[in-house]
Amino acid sequence: MAHNLLKGKKGIIFGALDEKSIAWRTALRCVEEGAEIVLTNAPVAMRMGEINKLAEICKAPVIAADVTSMEDIENLLTKSMEHFGGKIDFILHSVGMSLNIRKGRSYTDLDYNFTQKTMDISALSLHRVLQTAYKLDAINEWGSVVALTYIAAQRVFTHYSEMADAKSLLESIARSFGYHYGVKKKVRINTISQSPTKTTAGSGVKGFDGFVSYAEKMSPLGNATADECADYTVSLFSDYTKMVTMQNLYHDGGFSSTGISTAVAEQMEKE
Amino acid sequence: MAHNLLKGKKGIIFGALDEKSIAWRTALRCVEEGAEIVLTNAPVAMRMGEINKLAEICKAPVIAADVTSMEDIENLLTKSMEHFGGKIDFILHSVGMSLNIRKGRSYTDLDYNFTQKTMDISALSLHRVLQTAYKLDAINEWGSVVALTYIAAQRVFTHYSEMADAKSLLESIARSFGYHYGVKKKVRINTISQSPTKTTAGSGVKGFDGFVSYAEKMSPLGNATADECADYTVSLFSDYTKMVTMQNLYHDGGFSSTGISTAVAEQMEKE
Amino acid sequence: MAHNLLKGKKGIIFGALDEKSIAWRTALRCVEEGAEIVLTNAPVAMRMGEINKLAEICKAPVIAADVTSMEDIENLLTKSMEHFGGKIDFILHSVGMSLNIRKGRSYTDLDYNFTQKTMDISALSLHRVLQTAYKLDAINEWGSVVALTYIAAQRVFTHYSEMADAKSLLESIARSFGYHYGVKKKVRINTISQSPTKTTAGSGVKGFDGFVSYAEKMSPLGNATADECADYTVSLFSDYTKMVTMQNLYHDGGFSSTGISTAVAEQMEKE
Amino acid sequence: MAHNLLKGKKGIIFGALDEKSIAWRTALRCVEEGAEIVLTNAPVAMRMGEINKLAEICKAPVIAADVTSMEDIENLLTKSMEHFGGKIDFILHSVGMSLNIRKGRSYTDLDYNFTQKTMDISALSLHRVLQTAYKLDAINEWGSVVALTYIAAQRVFTHYSEMADAKSLLESIARSFGYHYGVKKKVRINTISQSPTKTTAGSGVKGFDGFVSYAEKMSPLGNATADECADYTVSLFSDYTKMVTMQNLYHDGGFSSTGISTAVAEQMEKE
Repeated sequence: MAHNLLKGKKGIIFGALDEKSIAWRTALRCVEEGAEIVLTNAPVAMRMGEINKLAEICKAPVIAADVTSMEDIENLLTKSMEHFGGKIDFILHSVGMSLNIRKGRSYTDLDYNFTQKTMDISALSLHRVLQTAYKLDAINEWGSVVALTYIAAQRVFTHYSEMADAKSLLESIARSFGYHYGVKKKVRINTISQSPTKTTAGSGVKGFDGFVSYAEKMSPLGNATADECADYTVSLFSDYTKMVTMQNLYHDGGFSSTGISTAVAEQMEKE
Repeated sequence: MAHNLLKGKKGIIFGALDEKSIAWRTALRCVEEGAEIVLTNAPVAMRMGEINKLAEICKAPVIAADVTSMEDIENLLTKSMEHFGGKIDFILHSVGMSLNIRKGRSYTDLDYNFTQKTMDISALSLHRVLQTAYKLDAINEWGSVVALTYIAAQRVFTHYSEMADAKSLLESIARSFGYHYGVKKKVRINTISQSPTKTTAGSGVKGFDGFVSYAEKMSPLGNATADECADYTVSLFSDYTKMVTMQNLYHDGGFSSTGISTAVAEQMEKE
Repeated sequence: MAHNLLKGKKGIIFGALDEKSIAWRTALRCVEEGAEIVLTNAPVAMRMGEINKLAEICKAPVIAADVTSMEDIENLLTKSMEHFGGKIDFILHSVGMSLNIRKGRSYTDLDYNFTQKTMDISALSLHRVLQTAYKLDAINEWGSVVALTYIAAQRVFTHYSEMADAKSLLESIARSFGYHYGVKKKVRINTISQSPTKTTAGSGVKGFDGFVSYAEKMSPLGNATADECADYTVSLFSDYTKMVTMQNLYHDGGFSSTGISTAVAEQMEKE
Repeated sequence: MAHNLLKGKKGIIFGALDEKSIAWRTALRCVEEGAEIVLTNAPVAMRMGEINKLAEICKAPVIAADVTSMEDIENLLTKSMEHFGGKIDFILHSVGMSLNIRKGRSYTDLDYNFTQKTMDISALSLHRVLQTAYKLDAINEWGSVVALTYIAAQRVFTHYSEMADAKSLLESIARSFGYHYGVKKKVRINTISQSPTKTTAGSGVKGFDGFVSYAEKMSPLGNATADECADYTVSLFSDYTKMVTMQNLYHDGGFSSTGISTAVAEQMEKE
């Protein structure tokens, strides 16, 4: 499926680690749909991942950026505009990291230095990118920004721990900045609340696999894949969705609106 | 803008009264995007409107159907499948009518016979269409159903009166049936909660024009037009949004997530 | 526990069938807290239940009323005011019935005559009571109306079938009328979204017992009982909550904000 | 109004600055309702305010605590338990501060060092208190924690700036920790989303007064006062609401469920 939906558009994709990443799949789809892109990730993630492979396929430059560094973000945006010879039309923010989860610290035993890093990397980073773009006037009118989030921002999924709080903060920032950027430049900002997805990042979370199969059973259409998320993101970058802004959009096969499915009810009745 | 997004798809459009109608604009856009369609409306609305003009442009048959008549709905679906030579891929439900509003009865002085008609026409009609389609197996796998709704289902806008309750019921039906049709046939069902739109139907509501300009001032991107709603609906009928179901999707320039805009705040401060 | 929270207040309790009913428990608690009450139920429910036993304990008159009859509702309100020698301070609406569920018709095979009855009895009844009270000016300023609802109005629980849609409609009516009654007479109107409760009505629903134990496992505090619901309702009738209106209030031990509990996750992992 | 609702209960009140503070009013009401309390605030706020006056009226000790210091929080909880001779039954968290707002920096020009302080003081502080209490086992079973928040966490009110994001984070923490504390000790945790209130803190925000009168016009019951918030908080500390947890509860005269009131509509139509 490719319809030139993003023909002539230029965008930045954050967070493509390896080929399982949603950001990776989205980068591919954007290019298939006619966009030009710049890839970026944290220096450390770039060493771990295979972003150069993706860059080759997409004919895209890679510009490293630590999302907690204003200098790096400014460099990224400036260099991207130079590369494109103009402003940006879309941005995918797919960034998240919790040191507390990595170190196995439970939600009732957080290290607050780690928590501050989690918030900074996973949520405030969106504000940093938007504020920098706003000041540089780096995004074209009717540009579109999407950040990936998760339903743990609304309901407790214990294994998701403090990332739930980070995602709540992220969604609020999307909403708040969406107002200002909308009024000033018609830029729209939304979050996609995606099904649990077996990415390399997701797989690190304890209890994650069990949860994926629970969500699969609970969702009338099953879990949305990374490729399907890429398709949906393309639609939000396109001109078909120009008046959608400041929304948190569930892309989850119906999970969020299902109280209990027949499949889960049956499983619950087993002894 | 046309990208063949709906190439090969077949759908039914309810509720195109005249060229201001969202359904009318959507019908045009679906055809531009490569779809074949059938148009339908209530016999009485067909007499008032200009649906035949639209039918000509769209090369679409018109099949009259009273949405409170199971016989009419069954006839519509059966004839549509005959016309298409196969099943249906999408349905737009843009149907609503309140006799209490028309007769000028306020929300605290409803005539319950009218109310029952309002619910039947504006909300249960969606269930009737879906149940009939479900029984006839009239919708292809991954088909998409969209019903138009309004934010009065979540918050009180006094001029909207009992239509608010009808829209709540409609959204619930979309969600409930979305579960069953999703599990059985991967059919997705969503509602679009659209900005107030100056259609012929909308304009009949007292206080409507004042409200449209209020919403315009409150929405960071301004009110979404009927044409923009058509674009968005196309995206939801397309394969880019296959895993979105049972959602109520605001298409409103950010109105729903804005508590107060600077423009409204300034107006409020005037004496 | 009794603190004279409702001393001097007068109210009407709809829907006390037998001693398992939430309405029954609430009637008892209201009287313990110093209120005077009138009991009402449909004539048919009164024959099946034991409301006269409750009336004796509460020293309360019983006034039969079919909630679909405007005459009955007017009679109920007029007689209640005569009995109290003044206006009413609170109303509990605990009324719901689905003939489709009773007759075993699934959500994809509804009989719409039954559906219309379901909506009329379970949802429009609240409007009828409020509209009649509004016209008779039957409720004191700062009076409080509570209607019982269920989270199926937001998410699909398949066994709940069309009652989900009825509850959505009910919640919308509470919100809509809450606006008008608030502006005119400071009367507040809320819904309590209660845990699944093993009442005689609830037990009739297929799959209900399994669901109760699922909800118990999912809720951090366990399911809320009928007695606890009565306590909560008393707080909403009291002067401690005067500025709460047009809200849907979850009384569910945390169920609504829990995505998955450890207890359910463990059960899901069993084979 | 006093009904001994909190007789025998012991609690900690954060954030009573002066007699306009919601925390101040709540402290008074808790004592009137039979509770014993400990007062706490940041050392700097204590110097500015008049907490000792309140302490005298309430016969309550004052224990200073910087909510970003784990040592201070541990000291506060330990000393409080010593003072009470036992565990705590309730906590009011009424803490918030934004250096960006104080310094007049707009939402699109944040200083991120300030932002991190805002998050730490206004949101993570709740986690710090709860985590410390959890580890010290400082709260009795069925204890109740309330944190004050604001609807800007859901919708954009521009003058509220980054405090909106902080409140989103706060509400998420209440929900997340509510799960864990509920499962372990039946402790419930909720947020009250209060009308804009003319406290000394609130008055510092630019555009605040205009907004208060807007909210007054929009709310069917008018804005809720600090005293009314105190009443509501008492009900949430009491045993009448034991099964309410992980909720964000609007205490706002209906503002949150009102799209537009007649009063605002009329004002909008003026030229």
